[in-house]
Amino acid sequence: MYSSKYLELLIDELVKLPSVGHKSALRLALHLLRVPKEDALRLSDAIRAVREKVGFCGLCGNFSEGDPCQLCADPQRDGALLCVVEQPGDVMALERTGQFRGRYHVLGGALSPLEGTSPEQLRIRELLERLRSGEVREIILATNPNVNGEATALYLGRLIGPLGIKVTRIARGVPMGSDLEYSDLVTLSRALEGRREVE
Amino acid sequence: MYSSKYLELLIDELVKLPSVGHKSALRLALHLLRVPKEDALRLSDAIRAVREKVGFCGLCGNFSEGDPCQLCADPQRDGALLCVVEQPGDVMALERTGQFRGRYHVLGGALSPLEGTSPEQLRIRELLERLRSGEVREIILATNPNVNGEATALYLGRLIGPLGIKVTRIARGVPMGSDLEYSDLVTLSRALEGRREVE
Repeated sequence: MYSSKYLELLIDELVKLPSVGHKSALRLALHLLRVPKEDALRLSDAIRAVREKVGFCGLCGNFSEGDPCQLCADPQRDGALLCVVEQPGDVMALERTGQFRGRYHVLGGALSPLEGTSPEQLRIRELLERLRSGEVREIILATNPNVNGEATALYLGRLIGPLGIKVTRIARGVPMGSDLEYSDLVTLSRALEGRREVE
Repeated sequence: MYSSKYLELLIDELVKLPSVGHKSALRLALHLLRVPKEDALRLSDAIRAVREKVGFCGLCGNFSEGDPCQLCADPQRDGALLCVVEQPGDVMALERTGQFRGRYHVLGGALSPLEGTSPEQLRIRELLERLRSGEVREIILATNPNVNGEATALYLGRLIGPLGIKVTRIARGVPMGSDLEYSDLVTLSRALEGRREVE
């Protein structure tokens, strides 16, 4: 079907990417054949480099080139505040807000009976280890506001509560810029539940 | 913002791909960090290979590993029928139909006064060269059914007509599976113009 077996091999690899179907893969492959060769090779090299140079921080579990990572090694960051998230992408999202000056702990997922993710598969033992030093005063549970993330937050709250550390959960409510009329029931219920007195 | 400069470099390359915005690039990059290392490197290698191994067929202008390409070298194909298209992707699309057993000629684009594409920039001289052997009896103009493609077909028709070779244009009309009610005016006009007697 294709005029080149290498083109076919490339399309085979591209369709494995998330939300890339066969048509998009073909379009991407033809794009990579059309652009200057250096541009295509730069992408190839960037993929290789990211896998050969990027590892994990042994402390927080985030992607990192060094161990510990820049965030864990930064003395400006408040070690008394620890934000627990599911994935490295969540750290990026929170860092983009510029609001948080504490440290992070990446679980590597969320508890899920359906997908068979149990506490042992998440970095919960490493989390308890970090709490042992006594430096952390507040744990912010920033797992996703969905079934698995909520279950994980509940589980961690029960686990950490007895240690005498303050445990908080990020607010769930109607997102900024949205329309009440089109908010789903669960979000709206949470927004009512989490209402605060106007100062 | 990112925990790794290699991750940042990869995202910079990914956003250059067509219809990949910053969010998609981030998602793709995190995906490539999450999958087994071999999978990511296979994609990296496939991109490199396609650029290092794939060139052009000197005859038809399609992507090819050899010169001439498989389609041009295939003795089973009818050399009397030559289908003229704009891009290599068009050859693939036509080959998928399994209907055409002739040969192809890839122009490498379409005439466009706006984008400054003139006849000299397309593989039109090479096309006339191929017609000189006298083997081709019919030219099928399969350039795109848009302004530039139509202009290119018109130009080629006037150029080749006097050579005594039959010149045809692919039918333009309402696409299969579509709804007349939602067809645009130009398509519907073409469908009326191109009507055929029911046998």
